[in-house]
Amino acid sequence: MINVAILGFGVVGSGTAEVIEKNRDVIKAKTGADIRIKHILDLRDFPGSPFETLITHDFNDIIADKDVDIVVEAMGGAHPAYDFSKAALEAGKNVVTSNKLVVAQFGTELLSIAEKNGVRYLFEASVGGGIPIIKPMMSDLAQNNIDAISGILNGTTNYILTQMSENGTSFEAALKEAQAKGYAEADPTSDIEGHDAARKIVILAALAYGKLISPDAIHCEGITKIDSRDVTFAEELENYSIKLIGHAEKVGDRILAFVAPRLIAAANPLHDVSDVFNGILVGCDMLGDAMFYGRGAGKLPTASAVVSDVIDIAVKLGTSAGSAKWTDAKENDIAPFADHVCAHYFRIAGCSKCMEKVFASDDVKCSITADGECAFITKPMTEKDALAKEKEFAEKEIKVLSRIRVL
Amino acid sequence: MINVAILGFGVVGSGTAEVIEKNRDVIKAKTGADIRIKHILDLRDFPGSPFETLITHDFNDIIADKDVDIVVEAMGGAHPAYDFSKAALEAGKNVVTSNKLVVAQFGTELLSIAEKNGVRYLFEASVGGGIPIIKPMMSDLAQNNIDAISGILNGTTNYILTQMSENGTSFEAALKEAQAKGYAEADPTSDIEGHDAARKIVILAALAYGKLISPDAIHCEGITKIDSRDVTFAEELENYSIKLIGHAEKVGDRILAFVAPRLIAAANPLHDVSDVFNGILVGCDMLGDAMFYGRGAGKLPTASAVVSDVIDIAVKLGTSAGSAKWTDAKENDIAPFADHVCAHYFRIAGCSKCMEKVFASDDVKCSITADGECAFITKPMTEKDALAKEKEFAEKEIKVLSRIRVL
Repeated sequence: MINVAILGFGVVGSGTAEVIEKNRDVIKAKTGADIRIKHILDLRDFPGSPFETLITHDFNDIIADKDVDIVVEAMGGAHPAYDFSKAALEAGKNVVTSNKLVVAQFGTELLSIAEKNGVRYLFEASVGGGIPIIKPMMSDLAQNNIDAISGILNGTTNYILTQMSENGTSFEAALKEAQAKGYAEADPTSDIEGHDAARKIVILAALAYGKLISPDAIHCEGITKIDSRDVTFAEELENYSIKLIGHAEKVGDRILAFVAPRLIAAANPLHDVSDVFNGILVGCDMLGDAMFYGRGAGKLPTASAVVSDVIDIAVKLGTSAGSAKWTDAKENDIAPFADHVCAHYFRIAGCSKCMEKVFASDDVKCSITADGECAFITKPMTEKDALAKEKEFAEKEIKVLSRIRVL
Repeated sequence: MINVAILGFGVVGSGTAEVIEKNRDVIKAKTGADIRIKHILDLRDFPGSPFETLITHDFNDIIADKDVDIVVEAMGGAHPAYDFSKAALEAGKNVVTSNKLVVAQFGTELLSIAEKNGVRYLFEASVGGGIPIIKPMMSDLAQNNIDAISGILNGTTNYILTQMSENGTSFEAALKEAQAKGYAEADPTSDIEGHDAARKIVILAALAYGKLISPDAIHCEGITKIDSRDVTFAEELENYSIKLIGHAEKVGDRILAFVAPRLIAAANPLHDVSDVFNGILVGCDMLGDAMFYGRGAGKLPTASAVVSDVIDIAVKLGTSAGSAKWTDAKENDIAPFADHVCAHYFRIAGCSKCMEKVFASDDVKCSITADGECAFITKPMTEKDALAKEKEFAEKEIKVLSRIRVL
């Protein structure tokens, strides 16, 4: 019997309780794990809930209970989620979380405390919602060097971009629709500005390359500047779709990571990952490309990932094997974004003649002119050179309406 | 230090050695596993190979070596692969295999022998080549009831169908091309008749439902009867693609599994899984749909999966936890194929009036007539009813040119 305490009885916390109770039989049959929820910490009471009697308002009830093997942190936010996680690990309890903010900010410290105390700190639900990606990165793909990771990591922005592409909706209208459907929060900043995806890509990069970069240290660009015209041009140029991509790759000994909208070619399996779904493409030196696809958010999908961590701890109780190993990245572990090389999509006010004032025709892969605008895709070039080209357009008084990197 | 013996130094065996040697550092850094290849069993010598000195021609050298922790069976075929695997397990050695034939036929017995001897029998590489799917099914998804599994499990047939779709190639020409590229064997029967996919889907069904069905006990239909006309009509009807699908689902308490070509709707993530890639869509009650995508065959991808099993054993040496648990299916565990319900695509010689002699217009979702043929898609109906409709056409002397099930 494994005893679990859940911190926070909101969406993820109550979903976790639901998965454990509903699927008790299949969990036991498949893994042998017999899981009991012993405490639920929340400020509120839940009269009438089947879990009513398990509610406590005092975190010390959980810390002091020697029977509690696993603490599920489902509070969200940095504090007290971090503090409670730390205290639980120091008390020799395993901790499972869905909190990407805490993992991206305090993961190194918490993993180290877990190791010292012979317990584990797991966070499958922090990236890709219900999709198994953290444990596959840690174990199933461990025999590969990871060449690159490119992920559609945020369901809200993917829903908005899908609406813009399929129904010609404007960004503003698509955002309102996402909010009405409960896919976007009242304050959608963290999603649409890419901060959520930034937290997730630094976690994946840490698993791949052993160094945790602060999400604040990477280039992070959201989708607020994407215009319906870009979506149309991208499709017309060469059937590209536009997706918000968290990307990480190794450049020599350094890690290059960033979040930005990208043009995705039709042959790329990420091209058709639509609506609130997430897809994570992992380029491996032995296996080649593998993609993990599924629901990147939502109560039960996220809870499913939380419970997979609970089970993983339950079946290996008493060992800290199977924990992530990384250190905090130092400045010289991080490759400058200016060195990143890819093709670039430009949309300028003008025609192909304006384009040719800055780009030699040899440096352009394809172009299209319509309604006084010209969209084109360059050959691969560094971010630095692409910025220089932007300046050249400005000097020639040609307005650059968009620049989007091509994956 | 973990000592490994490899049985068979062909494509998978030599790939396994290559992955272990090339990526020794990353494996050790990520998992702590320090793996040494101690013996390689093959009938041939390999003069000049870096592994020359490890070659033995006598299996007893391996069985008798107490230092050998893991035996990698990469021989292929039923015998002596099964016999050697059994002997190794009985000698207290863990066994890893890529051999779907042996797993599908003898898996229940070998798992039971492994358990009795406190060791493990793992087979990640037996399904989906390098794609992590076996271990995710066993652990990451264990908190879900599996509603259904639908997989593109055979790279050869997917390559052929992609050629037929993208280039209008005939089945015969596409098969020859696949053979020229080394994707299809000289005798392609096992691939194109669906036998390979049948072995794989029964393994996945056993992981999902705890019962191993003999591949011979399921309906198995290959792609040899797919005509270029079907590919064109399917696309024109509603942008369907045609893929060879291994499918398993629970019908009440029984398991329904079969292999057949299927029409795949554009919204299904399997729709665009092309060329030699595999994609496995797993419908979970909590997580929803998850898809695992990647290279389903090839030397290094398959070896990558083999080595992931080796690592999994290495990091948990001395335990039999994390093993598949299933029993052999009995006759009443298997749902009859006649009960399977789906929409059906028919192509008949004639026009829509011929169609209407058998199908009421209400029972048809969409239809198209061209060049003296009519293709249409029915509303969902049982296999039994679809067969009855085929007979009705025959009685009315209308030739049914194709019937393909819709996923």
